[in-house]
Amino acid sequence: MKLPTDPAENLAALIRCPSVTPAEGGALTALEAMLVPLGFTVERPVFSADGTPDIENLHARRSGEGPHLMFAGHTDVVPAGDEAAWTHAPFAAEIVDGVMYGRGAVDMKGGIACFVAALARHVGATGGPRGPVSLLITGDEEGPAINGTVRLLEWAARKGERWDACLLGEPTNPDRLGDMIKVGRRGSLSGTLTVLGRQGHAAYPHLADNPVRGLMTLLDALLGPPFDAGTERFQPTNLEVTSVDVGNTATNVIPARASAAFNVRFNDTWSAESLQAEIHNRLDAASRRRKYRKGRKEPIGFDLAWRDNPSHVFLTHDEKLIGTLSRSVEAVTGVRPVLSTSGGTSDARFIKDYCPVVEFGLVGQTMHMVDERVPLADLETLTEIYRRFIGNWFGEQ
Amino acid sequence: MKLPTDPAENLAALIRCPSVTPAEGGALTALEAMLVPLGFTVERPVFSADGTPDIENLHARRSGEGPHLMFAGHTDVVPAGDEAAWTHAPFAAEIVDGVMYGRGAVDMKGGIACFVAALARHVGATGGPRGPVSLLITGDEEGPAINGTVRLLEWAARKGERWDACLLGEPTNPDRLGDMIKVGRRGSLSGTLTVLGRQGHAAYPHLADNPVRGLMTLLDALLGPPFDAGTERFQPTNLEVTSVDVGNTATNVIPARASAAFNVRFNDTWSAESLQAEIHNRLDAASRRRKYRKGRKEPIGFDLAWRDNPSHVFLTHDEKLIGTLSRSVEAVTGVRPVLSTSGGTSDARFIKDYCPVVEFGLVGQTMHMVDERVPLADLETLTEIYRRFIGNWFGEQ
Ligand SMILES: [Zn+2]
Ligand SMILES: [Zn+2]
Repeated sequence: MKLPTDPAENLAALIRCPSVTPAEGGALTALEAMLVPLGFTVERPVFSADGTPDIENLHARRSGEGPHLMFAGHTDVVPAGDEAAWTHAPFAAEIVDGVMYGRGAVDMKGGIACFVAALARHVGATGGPRGPVSLLITGDEEGPAINGTVRLLEWAARKGERWDACLLGEPTNPDRLGDMIKVGRRGSLSGTLTVLGRQGHAAYPHLADNPVRGLMTLLDALLGPPFDAGTERFQPTNLEVTSVDVGNTATNVIPARASAAFNVRFNDTWSAESLQAEIHNRLDAASRRRKYRKGRKEPIGFDLAWRDNPSHVFLTHDEKLIGTLSRSVEAVTGVRPVLSTSGGTSDARFIKDYCPVVEFGLVGQTMHMVDERVPLADLETLTEIYRRFIGNWFGEQ
Repeated sequence: MKLPTDPAENLAALIRCPSVTPAEGGALTALEAMLVPLGFTVERPVFSADGTPDIENLHARRSGEGPHLMFAGHTDVVPAGDEAAWTHAPFAAEIVDGVMYGRGAVDMKGGIACFVAALARHVGATGGPRGPVSLLITGDEEGPAINGTVRLLEWAARKGERWDACLLGEPTNPDRLGDMIKVGRRGSLSGTLTVLGRQGHAAYPHLADNPVRGLMTLLDALLGPPFDAGTERFQPTNLEVTSVDVGNTATNVIPARASAAFNVRFNDTWSAESLQAEIHNRLDAASRRRKYRKGRKEPIGFDLAWRDNPSHVFLTHDEKLIGTLSRSVEAVTGVRPVLSTSGGTSDARFIKDYCPVVEFGLVGQTMHMVDERVPLADLETLTEIYRRFIGNWFGEQ
């Protein structure tokens, strides 16, 4: 039986499935066809929730005795956007000058293709890892992420699955393959702040209470001083005001309310809860300030609503997992990867509640862009890194 | 022939005409019927402009030899709003406990009714003023004010009319009849400020340029320091931010642009042009500041657009006009009126280009409100003030 040892061949098969979230697009079927010859038992649970599309996911398990390794990822991709702007069709997997083009090439069908190839090589060479290996692949990472990794983890855990470590194959390298392993992620918190003033005529500001003055006073307190100076493994916590909205078109009218939306990316100085408390404290203190509100004695009337659920900050400390991956990267590329926590959130924030998790994959530069692409050489390199990692993590190399 | 010497009767006739802008509603016809017996020649020019309703106006002239007095005002009224909330129907002119109820009772059919009654008494007692008297009454003061006073003044001036002074009968008294004569008005200037940033992901703020940070930096420079400390006759110049708009609903996205609208009420420290220059200077200086934009070197990219035409500040210095009116008020009420420039703009801003203008009328407390109303005693008092003013201004009393 032919094993799927060629990452380019694996990736081409996946790219040709137009699996734009929430469509499965044949991608999980193509993946299942690669995994069955490697001895995996494959299940395809579909999860649904009110108001969201049904999502098909894939759980593949290869039995064994020993530590249990999880590989996590997603086959769904963001839309191609303006297809006419692509120099090569987004779902054709064309190879030009040693580079494969296609939506998902790096984010992250490429990571899956390489892991499958790495495992196939290890199985071919050694008969396979002694311990169990599971792939948890979702079709909902680029969407609302409700019927994807969260549900798949719950579903598998309820069946009794326990994992010792997880490798998530997202594209983590900013410039060059080998640059960066992600060993944690900042948390994310979003809120909407509304200031209630008193409407009036612009010529009689003392009879009104302009909520824009109040809102600027409160936002001033959120934008400074800095929440912290950063920590050993994390950038400083940062808050961005993502919208301010009043919607008053009458030139002569002082409006009744003004609101702002903000997002904070926070490090391990804070829990989501302690940061929420800090933000409340800052707003309470600022609400009694007169900045922009000369002569006003009453505090600013405001309402703060948290949006969505917070993403919690996490940092992985598992020395075996991080060290094995880091040494594998260095052995193959000659580069010692930076251990980073930068960037946005990822599904690792869900996985970390079940087992230690790190992230390493391709170079992310073209992800979500027109002409997303990957050099075939990178596919080969990543496959070798993953192969070494599997062997070393199971102590079989 | 019966002369219209009773202000309450005059006002009742006017209130019963539902002349909500832009409708004439019979109000100018009712007014014409009062003026003809007093020897006025009445014309009713209709002005139109693209995109605005046609507006009927009234020009009444009583001939004579000597100085020419203009009385200006409007018969149009704002809508009644929730008619069910009125304790007396808004267009019925019901009198209860010596108080007449109705839309326009104080703003400003009441002022017109009193001026007509005052003139009728003067005509009845003396044969009338020796010099010409003109009434310029518009039906577009509460609307866009395009086909009203501006056009009526141009129209009359083109016919050769020249005036020596104008009394505008708007409700100027805050609390008590006699409180306040308006001898000028602040200017008004409106602008829209747009900051152009660079869109990006909230987790990578260094790759984006959040325009909200830039906008807050610029608005901070507009809200302080104060433009001036006020002048002898004017309140300090004041700026209100009337709207801020971004319209970004994506929690994770730093938006590309943010805009704010503002309105300034300015005193005679400034011309509209010098204030526009000052605002430009403040914005230019602030655009190079790093407040809220740590680490940024490039100036804030912004665009400033002025909205509508500015209203120019003015102060009337005519001692005969102000002194005669002030002494008439004091003689009738025992109160020496404050000479003020407070509040919003009025049609006086147009009239001041033709002749000195002051404003004096009823108590404004219920204007534009449900249950707009006027005590009959106030109508009688204002009529006596106007009668004295007419007699003294023409030197006939
Ligand atoms: Zn991804
Ligand atoms: Zn008015």
